[in-house]
Amino acid sequence: MVEAIDFQTDPSTYRHWHVTYDGAVAHLYMDVDEDGGLFPGYQLKLNSYDLGVDIELADIVQRMRFEHPEVKVVVMRSGKDRVFCAGANIRMLGGATHSHKVNFCKFTNETRNTYEAAEEDSGQKYICAVKGACAGGGYELALACNYIMLTDDGSSAVSLPEVPLLAVLPGTGGLTRVTDKRKVRRDRADVFCSVEEGVRGKRAKEWNLVDEVVPNGRFEEIVAERASEFATNSIKRDAGEGIELTPLKRTIGDDNIIYSAVEIELDRAARTATITLRGPDETPPVDMAEFQKQGADAYLLRVARELDDAMLHLRFNEMELGLLIFKTQGDSETLLAHEALLIGNAQNWLANEVLKFWKRVLKRIDVTSRSMIAQVEHGSCFAGVFAELLFAVDRTYMMEGAFEGDNRPIASVTLSEANFGPLPMGNELTRLETRFLEQPSMVEATQAMIGEPLQAEEANQAGLVTLILDDIDWEDEVRLFIEERVSFSPDAMTGMEANLRFAGPETMETRIFGRLTAWQNWIFNRSNAVGSEGALQRYGTGVRASFDMTRV
Amino acid sequence: MVEAIDFQTDPSTYRHWHVTYDGAVAHLYMDVDEDGGLFPGYQLKLNSYDLGVDIELADIVQRMRFEHPEVKVVVMRSGKDRVFCAGANIRMLGGATHSHKVNFCKFTNETRNTYEAAEEDSGQKYICAVKGACAGGGYELALACNYIMLTDDGSSAVSLPEVPLLAVLPGTGGLTRVTDKRKVRRDRADVFCSVEEGVRGKRAKEWNLVDEVVPNGRFEEIVAERASEFATNSIKRDAGEGIELTPLKRTIGDDNIIYSAVEIELDRAARTATITLRGPDETPPVDMAEFQKQGADAYLLRVARELDDAMLHLRFNEMELGLLIFKTQGDSETLLAHEALLIGNAQNWLANEVLKFWKRVLKRIDVTSRSMIAQVEHGSCFAGVFAELLFAVDRTYMMEGAFEGDNRPIASVTLSEANFGPLPMGNELTRLETRFLEQPSMVEATQAMIGEPLQAEEANQAGLVTLILDDIDWEDEVRLFIEERVSFSPDAMTGMEANLRFAGPETMETRIFGRLTAWQNWIFNRSNAVGSEGALQRYGTGVRASFDMTRV
Repeated sequence: MVEAIDFQTDPSTYRHWHVTYDGAVAHLYMDVDEDGGLFPGYQLKLNSYDLGVDIELADIVQRMRFEHPEVKVVVMRSGKDRVFCAGANIRMLGGATHSHKVNFCKFTNETRNTYEAAEEDSGQKYICAVKGACAGGGYELALACNYIMLTDDGSSAVSLPEVPLLAVLPGTGGLTRVTDKRKVRRDRADVFCSVEEGVRGKRAKEWNLVDEVVPNGRFEEIVAERASEFATNSIKRDAGEGIELTPLKRTIGDDNIIYSAVEIELDRAARTATITLRGPDETPPVDMAEFQKQGADAYLLRVARELDDAMLHLRFNEMELGLLIFKTQGDSETLLAHEALLIGNAQNWLANEVLKFWKRVLKRIDVTSRSMIAQVEHGSCFAGVFAELLFAVDRTYMMEGAFEGDNRPIASVTLSEANFGPLPMGNELTRLETRFLEQPSMVEATQAMIGEPLQAEEANQAGLVTLILDDIDWEDEVRLFIEERVSFSPDAMTGMEANLRFAGPETMETRIFGRLTAWQNWIFNRSNAVGSEGALQRYGTGVRASFDMTRV
Repeated sequence: MVEAIDFQTDPSTYRHWHVTYDGAVAHLYMDVDEDGGLFPGYQLKLNSYDLGVDIELADIVQRMRFEHPEVKVVVMRSGKDRVFCAGANIRMLGGATHSHKVNFCKFTNETRNTYEAAEEDSGQKYICAVKGACAGGGYELALACNYIMLTDDGSSAVSLPEVPLLAVLPGTGGLTRVTDKRKVRRDRADVFCSVEEGVRGKRAKEWNLVDEVVPNGRFEEIVAERASEFATNSIKRDAGEGIELTPLKRTIGDDNIIYSAVEIELDRAARTATITLRGPDETPPVDMAEFQKQGADAYLLRVARELDDAMLHLRFNEMELGLLIFKTQGDSETLLAHEALLIGNAQNWLANEVLKFWKRVLKRIDVTSRSMIAQVEHGSCFAGVFAELLFAVDRTYMMEGAFEGDNRPIASVTLSEANFGPLPMGNELTRLETRFLEQPSMVEATQAMIGEPLQAEEANQAGLVTLILDDIDWEDEVRLFIEERVSFSPDAMTGMEANLRFAGPETMETRIFGRLTAWQNWIFNRSNAVGSEGALQRYGTGVRASFDMTRV
């Protein structure tokens, strides 16, 4: 696994999926190429998947929203005759490092969440038409859809066989969606998750594991009916033409990655990466029509795509960089003018999509298991959506007063409406509401400052930054902090940050990334799962796994 | 660690704590005996603690409620001059098995929760008067109190140094209480949890790590003032005399443990324990005055104490028994009459205490990491509070119809008011509300059945049991289930059950047992913490731990 994993793809290179478009209904077929695994050493049999399959899926869901705004219903099916999807590939998991398994599960979870986000944020509903075995990660794909249809052919079943078969948990939200989304009674969930063969037919509907069981002979007909009904009753308004998500401009060097508006500098010796967002040079489009004409080149869409790609690259390809440092440089006013066009036109389909994409990118940052800080330096543009980064990271250092030899504009932070609603975290609070948990007066006080460039002392008073430092202290303090931070145990950091970042209410999403993921990671470390006699290694050998029966 | 750990203790044998009583105020001193460790191999220096210290503390909190109902404020202090508490003993943790570490953290968490429950359920407020270093588990003891006073002597500080010092997380709710209870801003929490030396004086108050910083010269005086104020303003009504919690009647055999109303049968070959609750033989006390006269012998108090002790015994001393089977035998009507006395007198201090104790015992069952089932057999008395066990376990099997040669009364389940409010789970829902998540009509339907003995078919229809089985199927089905269940990986079971048992809303408590615990368990498995070059092993050696820097 030395070659860098690339998250950029496009329909011309898909190996595992195809999509057909039919007006308001899109048909999504999973048809995994057995020989198309991302790494050597396994075959993707029975529509099982690896990260490469999921990278294509994530791309499809993203393009559906930007390139096909006319789509109101996506029907997901298998492209193979006798199997829907057998889940994540076991041999791939058995051979993967602990960190790859964890990273893989996180990315697939994020992708499943985009199914639900597509309906919630854009009115694109995913429905799942299941024929054949739908096991483990396969059923988790179905669970991420908001309507599940199962054919009644006497054999097609949904199942979560991970626990009895592999001694691990379903890795992409299965347990949480079974209880929280589908509200399956817990004792039935216990039964369901303990039987390898799963549940089919009437009982699957009775237990609410699926929404509808369909006579096999009329399967295609009823699926088409349902898709058409959902499309007709959709609240999604008709949109115009989509815009094409053209390839990113990106240069990957040994120690840096340069996009058009995002730059990453890697310092492997110091175990840090510095991510700098460059503010817009150009004035904003005059209206959404011009924005649409600019398409994927429009600044705020472009920088979101670049930042998203950068985060994924760092997660998967730079595993030992423990600290990510966010910086910005540019003009806050121009940046806010770009943002104002979107916020002022949030009813426009494309403005909505760009804002909702920022919501997803920021959530991806929230759940990134690296220590993260922001440095608010002179000349920076932490304004509006960029200011949101200050509240996503673990702490923020800000320059106070003039620095000798630095003639850039004095560092400031500017809040906008973007910080007070449109970009909620997974817990459904804004980052400022989470920061000032149950202290609405603190949130209101900051809201009153919208549009004001706040210099260090004001930003500090308002609770927006962690530490303000003048010319004398800045360099030493920041350096000492970084040296110390990267010396800590990365595991302890992961655990600490996962607990400190998500105060307040929990949602299905936070439970998937918090509770479920933590238990899965624990199990992924236990010899009962991953040891040489564990279930993942023994799978398919005909030899039963051997377990240490001590109950923890 | 071969000798059985006993959770029964009483003030005459305490080695680590003493309590003085002064009307409405009790003074609780932590004064750990260095040589009083529960296991050999470590000294409990600097008021550090192990499980033995916590067993005494749990006993104190319990007795405070039953034996000292006059107490409205408990002031917790160190009995040593220069240190408040250094937290859990590191050498003990370094030498302990993974499962003991996990069990230890769970028990200490439950004990911390009883501090908060004492105020919420009985109006007994714990305040913490900190002088000297208050580090790690020491600060977590303070965090469990509802008012923290810190002396301003230039050195006394509160700290959570686990992450920088030991590469593990604070193990008893520290991170969660810092963010959720004390609402410390997350970037400040990040700073606080990263500095070994902690935070003292004004900043500790400014960051809300403590409630009050007190001039050192007036410390005792102001602590006394505060205790007196809280006692005066307490909403706790004056109660009469307490009742003594006399020693449990208990016989521990090789394969069983026999209490007066609870019996455990151990089948180590099958890896199961069967816990049978015997219904009351005697009619209930005529009123609470008679209940009080019976004291610790009163049936519903006695059985709760026995069940609590049984659960702890199984958790710590029978680590390989993967499945707990709950049974009852007795007369439901008599049992419900006992319960009715308590529920009808919930305003009486003692009735309240007994009900709230049941709440804690049931929560202890909820978070017990073993597969649990209930078997509703003929002659059983799953009624009211005992029926609550059906909804605490993972699944329930019930006998349907007459069984040949079995002349006990036909199996039934009877609901009571106890199932609809007084015994909430950690998520603050009743177990039936959790079972029928967001389906209030299902809960209402069962509520309409209060008092009716429901036989198998009715109980099944109402969704109260998982599977009903007649004479022909019972034995085989139950046996097959048990054989299969105990063959699964115990780790996968722990993770699955932790996710399936707690659907719905999350609270500080569920987050401590769910998210925080899971991350801690993961870290407790990582070589960066527990490996031979890890931080727990290297602690105190003068040699820095060596970390694998891959970030997961």
